[in-house]
Amino acid sequence: MPELRKDPVSGRWIIIATERSTRPSDFKSGPQPIKGGFCPFCEGNEDKTPPEIIAYREKGTLANEKGWRVRVVSNKFPALRIEGNLNKHGEGIYDTMNGIGAHEVIIESPKHIISLAELSNPQVEEVLWAYRDRLVDLKKDRRFVSGLIFKNVGVTAGASLEHSHSQLIVTPIVPISVKHEMDGCMDFYKYRGRCLFCDMVQQELSAGVRIVFEGDNFLAFAPYASRFPFEIWILPKNHSSHFENLQKMEIGELAQVLRTVLFKLEIALEFPPYNYIIHTTPFAFGEVEHYHWHIEIIPRLTKIAGFEWGTGFYINTVTPESAAEFLRDANIEKPLTEKYH
Amino acid sequence: MPELRKDPVSGRWIIIATERSTRPSDFKSGPQPIKGGFCPFCEGNEDKTPPEIIAYREKGTLANEKGWRVRVVSNKFPALRIEGNLNKHGEGIYDTMNGIGAHEVIIESPKHIISLAELSNPQVEEVLWAYRDRLVDLKKDRRFVSGLIFKNVGVTAGASLEHSHSQLIVTPIVPISVKHEMDGCMDFYKYRGRCLFCDMVQQELSAGVRIVFEGDNFLAFAPYASRFPFEIWILPKNHSSHFENLQKMEIGELAQVLRTVLFKLEIALEFPPYNYIIHTTPFAFGEVEHYHWHIEIIPRLTKIAGFEWGTGFYINTVTPESAAEFLRDANIEKPLTEKYH
Repeated sequence: MPELRKDPVSGRWIIIATERSTRPSDFKSGPQPIKGGFCPFCEGNEDKTPPEIIAYREKGTLANEKGWRVRVVSNKFPALRIEGNLNKHGEGIYDTMNGIGAHEVIIESPKHIISLAELSNPQVEEVLWAYRDRLVDLKKDRRFVSGLIFKNVGVTAGASLEHSHSQLIVTPIVPISVKHEMDGCMDFYKYRGRCLFCDMVQQELSAGVRIVFEGDNFLAFAPYASRFPFEIWILPKNHSSHFENLQKMEIGELAQVLRTVLFKLEIALEFPPYNYIIHTTPFAFGEVEHYHWHIEIIPRLTKIAGFEWGTGFYINTVTPESAAEFLRDANIEKPLTEKYH
Repeated sequence: MPELRKDPVSGRWIIIATERSTRPSDFKSGPQPIKGGFCPFCEGNEDKTPPEIIAYREKGTLANEKGWRVRVVSNKFPALRIEGNLNKHGEGIYDTMNGIGAHEVIIESPKHIISLAELSNPQVEEVLWAYRDRLVDLKKDRRFVSGLIFKNVGVTAGASLEHSHSQLIVTPIVPISVKHEMDGCMDFYKYRGRCLFCDMVQQELSAGVRIVFEGDNFLAFAPYASRFPFEIWILPKNHSSHFENLQKMEIGELAQVLRTVLFKLEIALEFPPYNYIIHTTPFAFGEVEHYHWHIEIIPRLTKIAGFEWGTGFYINTVTPESAAEFLRDANIEKPLTEKYH
């Protein structure tokens, strides 16, 4: 059973998941990326993953067989376990509980594609529906308080398989970064009486210089205090605290905005490793006025050194304004698949 | 001039330092490590670095020539500039100021050594004296509020030169992680009336299972909620809020503890990339009862994926207890230099 432990200094929780590794000596040569010919996520290999939790399928096809378009399975090496009690307790000054939660994989296509941007807009829309459906289902479980959807692309960004996929982790605690973001937004809300992200959208629309792509309901921009070169945030223009409360019409547009932005990133920077993370209000909260869900996209172009680790104080060598201009100008007229060949 | 910008959501400051890079297109192939035959930090190449700020030298030798044992110079590509006014101002909802501060390099030996553990205890002691002397000098400048000493070893950990060295960055703001740590310690202090780190030392000494190495005045242990495999913290056993207030007798023992711990890490894990960072109370505070300086050592054995970035919620595959046992057992009887050859 994995274990959750809290650092009393920072308030940060960590997961001790020894089942994902074996002995300390395994680290001697560093982790090796898993690459190779066989892909457990490709159509026809459904028996090589844990059984599917949900899948969007052609009519008449059977679970765990061909015929799916998007498929969600449990992670084969889960960081948290779905079964069991939390058993929260103290060990002197420390806090701990069982590593209960969900850790799922969203397989984005039956074909062996590498980038989400290789899919059509309707296909990306189905990926977003899968995110939403899983969050809605898992938030019914009263043990869980926070849901996080993220994507790792490229070995440098932590991906162990190439086939385009995302992950969902649901936790029994609020992750520290989410707490810090919500606290910062609450401070602003108490002082100004408005949502900080709503103000940010207004200022970015009026300044214009950091915009990467704009839709009717969504804005993609390089944040003013970008930690990393080419960091991009996608926000709904109108206030919305929970990703999973997206309307059907909005989800279609979000698919287009997300796909366009990733496409631009991949063309402009020649397929960089990257992560994206959906930051959304924890399950424990109903609709709130002070926090606004958003997607953070982080290209992994630079190495993180001791200074950044020690301080949370990043050095970025590219201005968000020049990054945004470079991405605005990226030509995405040809299909991405042509660029791979 | 570099620029400091604050993210209003997280409260995190970042540095935009465009002089360290050139164009956005430079990122296409990713950063390349600088390696090669010539080393600007070696004895005899003193004219290849900026002029020395301080150096511990043999009597009769001249500044910026041979004869030094430890040498401190400005970083050739500084993230912050020493000259100028802060010019704090707002841009709508955002905060910004000039990138004023200090960014120095501590060259730890005139010889081309790779690891601090290759030095003798008295040599490591002089490195610690250099850290202390530079902090004491820079804290006189009223523009600066926080000083951070850190070390990057290995390309993966962000090092661009192999020759053993540390860095010092002094900033006009309190870095967000330092603020969060101090806030966490203040919460504990308000509730329990004691320093959290002092309690931690007591609990670790009595539990014993996470101890890596113990001296009369310092304790090295794997923290209960380690983010990374083989993370190690070194703390003074008795309360002390500022690293730079170390007593002479203590600095000799700290040199021995630090060298021993790094030696064990390098033997046990076969020279892993790592960072260490000295967390100390910001200049702006006098002696405080709630915060306790310490050194955090982070081996860089695992890749940081989207989940960690998005949440500050780390998955560690090695228990701190087994990491500590593995390091306690590491045999450091032979000199480290023999291991390199």
